[in-house]
This record gives sequence, structure tokens and C-alpha cells, in this order.
Amino acid sequence: MSFTESLREHADSIWSAWHEHPFIRGIGDGSLEEAKFKYWLRQDYLYLIDYSRVFAYGGARAQKLEVMQKFAGLMDGILNTEMELHRQYAKEFGIELEDLEREEKSPSCQAYTDFLVRTASEGSVPEILAVLLPCLWGFLEIGERLVETGDTSEENLYRDWIEMYSSDDFRQLTDWARELMEDYAEDLSDRRRQRLKELFVISSRFEYKFWDMAENLEEWEV
Amino acid sequence: MSFTESLREHADSIWSAWHEHPFIRGIGDGSLEEAKFKYWLRQDYLYLIDYSRVFAYGGARAQKLEVMQKFAGLMDGILNTEMELHRQYAKEFGIELEDLEREEKSPSCQAYTDFLVRTASEGSVPEILAVLLPCLWGFLEIGERLVETGDTSEENLYRDWIEMYSSDDFRQLTDWARELMEDYAEDLSDRRRQRLKELFVISSRFEYKFWDMAENLEEWEV
Amino acid sequence: MSFTESLREHADSIWSAWHEHPFIRGIGDGSLEEAKFKYWLRQDYLYLIDYSRVFAYGGARAQKLEVMQKFAGLMDGILNTEMELHRQYAKEFGIELEDLEREEKSPSCQAYTDFLVRTASEGSVPEILAVLLPCLWGFLEIGERLVETGDTSEENLYRDWIEMYSSDDFRQLTDWARELMEDYAEDLSDRRRQRLKELFVISSRFEYKFWDMAENLEEWEV
Amino acid sequence: MSFTESLREHADSIWSAWHEHPFIRGIGDGSLEEAKFKYWLRQDYLYLIDYSRVFAYGGARAQKLEVMQKFAGLMDGILNTEMELHRQYAKEFGIELEDLEREEKSPSCQAYTDFLVRTASEGSVPEILAVLLPCLWGFLEIGERLVETGDTSEENLYRDWIEMYSSDDFRQLTDWARELMEDYAEDLSDRRRQRLKELFVISSRFEYKFWDMAENLEEWEV
Repeated sequence: MSFTESLREHADSIWSAWHEHPFIRGIGDGSLEEAKFKYWLRQDYLYLIDYSRVFAYGGARAQKLEVMQKFAGLMDGILNTEMELHRQYAKEFGIELEDLEREEKSPSCQAYTDFLVRTASEGSVPEILAVLLPCLWGFLEIGERLVETGDTSEENLYRDWIEMYSSDDFRQLTDWARELMEDYAEDLSDRRRQRLKELFVISSRFEYKFWDMAENLEEWEV
Repeated sequence: MSFTESLREHADSIWSAWHEHPFIRGIGDGSLEEAKFKYWLRQDYLYLIDYSRVFAYGGARAQKLEVMQKFAGLMDGILNTEMELHRQYAKEFGIELEDLEREEKSPSCQAYTDFLVRTASEGSVPEILAVLLPCLWGFLEIGERLVETGDTSEENLYRDWIEMYSSDDFRQLTDWARELMEDYAEDLSDRRRQRLKELFVISSRFEYKFWDMAENLEEWEV
Repeated sequence: MSFTESLREHADSIWSAWHEHPFIRGIGDGSLEEAKFKYWLRQDYLYLIDYSRVFAYGGARAQKLEVMQKFAGLMDGILNTEMELHRQYAKEFGIELEDLEREEKSPSCQAYTDFLVRTASEGSVPEILAVLLPCLWGFLEIGERLVETGDTSEENLYRDWIEMYSSDDFRQLTDWARELMEDYAEDLSDRRRQRLKELFVISSRFEYKFWDMAENLEEWEV
Repeated sequence: MSFTESLREHADSIWSAWHEHPFIRGIGDGSLEEAKFKYWLRQDYLYLIDYSRVFAYGGARAQKLEVMQKFAGLMDGILNTEMELHRQYAKEFGIELEDLEREEKSPSCQAYTDFLVRTASEGSVPEILAVLLPCLWGFLEIGERLVETGDTSEENLYRDWIEMYSSDDFRQLTDWARELMEDYAEDLSDRRRQRLKELFVISSRFEYKFWDMAENLEEWEV
């Protein structure tokens, strides 16, 4: 079993819980209430900003030039291309730019992004990949499963979402991240691999909480 | 109104919610279930470890030698004195060292500590003080209120806790942090002060969640 | 006087020393020994790698999305476009990719890049701009002066170099960095502005040492 | 051969150059011009401030509690005890506190401290130990050799200096750092060990430059 497969296996019960979650099921069959999806879109916009910071740290810390180049390209892609797509997509759901900019992080968005950025700002490339992978690979797995089991007809309001995360581009991005992790893993001690597993699990748990947050329109209690 | 008073005012509704919280009331009148307190003690031990990292970053980043010296003394104090006191206090409640070392962070402990360390690892001394203050000053305010309104007789199992956080030592530590923040604040722009208020509010909210976590014996859902 | 003009004035004697330096004069009139220029090219390649890390930190730390986007674009531009141009240009001087990759940092290159990355990894956007500006703005000023006073005929082996650093693109990049610094400066206290001046001076001094290093084919003594 | 012995061997020619350096020989036989030693004392004071930041980063980044505790104790010791001893010792040579506080870093002090802090702020404990060791272990080796070969009579103005760096306390500190590095090294890949060797060599070279700086009363050229 490859190292990334062992990470995936280690978090298997958590990943299974994603697939069973009402939010994901609702995207799959189109039954998700639009208000919940719009909540998710607004929080995901804030998430993406910090997510791009994690790629910045990856580029700042990598020793190999080719790894720096890749992280730089991805950071630029998120900030200068994907966020514009996200804004356009949000607009189709009636969310204006001002809405996105006025939004405040929910507790789970705050927690997940702080975990990502803390790990990136203190760690090295393997730690950065360990916390990025559950989002990249997880969305791909969700997208690909929904292509198989969900409703991908024009009836489903969330069809484009399913398409995006099951696309070849998204698969290639995930494959790059997994292969890079395998490269690094060859050189890592058991202790360090154990630490990466723990980070991967925490990130996977925060992925779950992020779906759950949107399902429940989470707010700060105080 | 001084800057730290304006921070306190800005978060007033959150701080009021602490004082009303069943966990705090339970410490005050001694009615808190011991299982909840023991849960809090175990999580607080993990919290203290990351808390000391925030002081380390304060020392690493301060420009003035006297500020570096103070942060170094506090970091050393937490790690080499207070944690031992914490271990002894935990033992009185039947929690062994192995229990402390085996403990895993709860979702709210993970979120709060990641927020603190992320802010410290990316920020400067004013940001570090903004996120530290709700814990320092907040515990003092809770301790001092419970001395007035709570049960400080030997009957109250949590009497020592109330005493610790209402002690002169703890007040002096809080005063130092507040005065240092006032010094820095004189030099800060409105935009930066606004940013510090936001950080202070988030930290205050996580303080609330930390009490709530213990009250509900919070666990990861997946 | 604008803030960046005051920075420039503060370091005026250092910037004047650049213009008088034999390495710069030698580029201007084409008399520079090729061995010295090749040495510079090899070290500048190593410099660029760390330079791009500084842009990464700028992107990671900026609060405003548009500033993050710009830093991301610049980091991507350096790593995925300019370094290839640098490799091609080096090849025209007989330096192969293997030579570039085998090169070890000289003492002055080590010192300058460590100063840049240390400041970026510990600081915020104003500090990052203060240490970047002497390189950006300085090269532009050198390029523009050499267009006026130097030999820009085909006879001058270093004609392309002069053209690159006096180009509109390079001016626009410098203008962006200066304008961004002016934006931030409006909000900064005198103490912080003083600190930025010190950083700007140190960076200017390292610029001088970098020219001097190439002029003297600097090596580690031990 | 243990890992730290292999580091020492890798930098052997550099360490030999220290022992032959006129500044070290001058301390050993008491012939060093006092002006050079006073220059060294003033720069060393600035060095110590950044040096303590490296211990702060060690404490912030360590995973094991006992390693955090040790780094915290050392950081506190440098800032709250040793710097006062340094000030007293400087005073014996007629250097007042104002002189120390007015001093500006020389080029080599700037370079060395930026290298240390950059490495610490971006790295993990093994990198931090690799760059700290040449100073700790190197001073011990110099101190112990001078006890054997130098003049330790009251005639030698620098007798206390030799005594300090050959003391049991200083040996224990060095032993701790070496043993900790051995612990970490067991778990590191060849690639990472290679990287640590490179860092150890750069730090050793900066140690040489630091002696050379004092011998030549180094100043910024511009």
C-alpha cells in the first residue's frame, strides 16, 4: 500500500461519513436546500483565500525549484483565476461580490483555516501536503462518486458543482499532490509519517465539520 | 477609555455570556459535576502547551529587549513551573500523568489553539497580545467575580481554582499584558486597531466555546 | 516628500556609491570583464530563487485580496517565466543549466538572501516592501541612468541587460511596489516608519555588496 | 562515528582555521589589542539578542514537552541572566550600557544573525540545532584548547573569557545540544542529514567571519 493510500485508509471512517452526510447526498440528488448551498458558497470563498496562503507557504518552504514553481502556479491559479470563477458561480445563485466581502467566518471555517495556516506557517512541505490532501482528494472522491451515483441531468441545480470536482483538471491536481507526497514519504521516518497521519485525520475531520456547518447554517453562539 | 477597555467593551456581550455559563456558575457554587471539571483539566493541559508557544513567538518577534525578557520569563514559567502545578492539581482529581499525555485535543481545543498559534506565528506583538488577553484578563475577571459572588468556603471543591485566578500574581500578569498593549496601541493606526478588535473578539468567542466544550464533554463527531 | 522618496533620500549616499561602482560603470561602457558578469549571473540565479520566496511571504501575509493576487502573480512570474529567461540569457554567456544548479551561494549572496527571507518570514507587508524596494527600484534607476549615460550600441555586450532594467515592464513593477508602500505608509506610526528606513538602508547596503562581490569574484575564505 | 562527530569532521578545515586565527591566538596569549576585544563584546551583545530568538523558535516548534522546556529555560537564561553578566563584563572593559544599546550590527554580525533567525523561523528542531551547534560546541572547543595551550595566569586580560567557555556549565549545555541532535538524527533521512551538514558548514563559516570581523574592526563600506 502506498503512503497516501495508508493515509486514506487511516481516515476511512471519516471519509465514509462525508459520503453519507445529508449535504453531500443533497448535492448528489439535487434535494439540497438552496439556502444551505449559498451559505456554503459564501464560506468557501473565505476558505479559498486562506487555502491559497497554504500554497504560498509551500512555495516559500520547498527546497526543489520544480516544487516551488508548482506551488507558485497553483497559488496564482487560485487567486487570479479560480476565485473569479467562484464569484461568477456565486452570482448565478444570487450572491453578489459585496455579500462575499461582507461575510464573516463561521466557527468551523475559522477553525479549519486556522489549522491549515498554522500547520503551513510552522511546517515543511510534507506537513503542508498532509493537510491539503483531504480537501483536494476528498472533493475528487466526492465528485467522482456523485457522477456515478448522483443525478447529473440538467434537473440537478448542483450539476456544475459535481462536474467541476470530477473533472480531469481536478484529478490531475490531486494526482500531483499525491505523487509529491509519495516522493517525500520515501525519505521520512516512521515518527514523521505518524505525525502526518494525525494531521491528515484532523484535516479530514474539519472537512466533515465544514459540510456539517453548511447543513446546519452554523453561527457563533455568542 | 483606554484601548484595552475599548477591546473589553467591544466583546462585552461575549464576556457576559461566560459569567452566565453553567460551567462557570458550577465552579462558583461548587455544583459542577466533577467529570466535567476533569475533562476541562485534561484539555487545559493541552491548551497550556500551545499557549506557551504563543509566548515563545512573542519573545522571538519583540523589538525591545525588555519585552523579549518578559515573554521569555513567562514562557519558562508556564513550561517549567505552572505545568508541574497543573499536573499536581490534576492528580488531586485522580488524573495521572499518563492520562494527560494520552489525551487528544477536542474540536474546540484544537480550534482555539490553532487560532492562537496561527496568529502568533504570522503576527507581531500587538496581535499576540490581542489574542492572549481574553484568556489572561478573562480568567482574572471570572476569578474576581467568583470571589465576590461564589462560595469560597472549604465546602467548594473548586475553591483553589477560584483562588488561583483571583490571586495577586495573576492580576499582575494581566496588568502587564494590558499595559504593554496600551504602549503599543499608542502607535497603531485605526485600521490596525480594528484588526486587533476582531482578533480579541474571536479569542473571546473561543474562550466561550472552551467552557461550553467542557460543560458538554465535547467529542469529535467522526 | 512622499514616504518612498524619504526612504530613497535616507539611503542616498549608498545609492550614489552603486552608480560609481566599477561593476556598474563596466556594464555601462561595456568594459566589464566577462568573467565577472558570468559570476554575477550565476549568483543572481540563486538570489532569484530566494527573492521569489519573499513574494510568497507577501502573498501569505497580505490582508487585502488584491495585494495577495499581485504577490501571487509576481511569484509565479519569477519562478515560471523570468527564471527561464535568466537561464537562456546565461546560456548566451556559455553558462549551462548544470553550472547554475551546481553553484553555491557566495558570502554576500548568502547574507543578502538570508536578510530578505528572515525579514519576510517574520514581518508583514510593509517590512517586505521595504527590503524588496532597493532591488526593484535600484535596478530601474541603474538601468535608466545607463540608458542616458552608457553605451547602448550593439558594441556593448551588456546592452540587453541595460534594456531589461530600463524597460516599461520593469518601471511598472517598481511603480506598483512604491505605490503599495505609500498606501501602507499612510497608516504607519513614526516608530514603524523608522524601522522601515533601517530595513531599506540594510537592503541598499547589501545591494552594494552584491555588486562588489561580483567585481571581486568573492569566495568564502574558509 | 556519531552524527555530530560527522558534522564536526565535515567542517574540520573551518574549525582548524578558527584555532589559527589571530583573534583567538590573541585571546590565548593575552596579546589581543583591547580595542578589538571591545569591538567583539559590543557585536556579541547584538548577536546574543538574536541568538535567544533562535531558542524561542526551538521552543515554539518542538513536539516533545521536555524539549520545549529546555529551550524555554535556555532562552530565559540568556535574556534574563547571561545578558546581565555580559553587560557587567563589558563594563569592566569600559563599555557602558548606552554604548551597547547604540551599537549597530556590523556586516558579518548582520549576516550571521539573519542566517540563524531565517533558519529557525522556517525550520524545525534539527535545523535549529545544526545552526546553533557551531557556536556552542565551537566556543567550548576553543575554550578547552586555550586552557591547555594558552596563558591562564592573571596576566592574561582575557583569562575570564577562557574560563567561561571552558566551564562545566558550558560543556553541559553543549553536551545537551549534541545529544538532542543525535536523538533527532536517528530518524532523519540521508537527504535531510545532508541538508543539516550544509547548514552546519555555513554556520561554521560565519563563526570564522565573526572572529575575522573583530580582528579587522569591520565596518560597512557604504
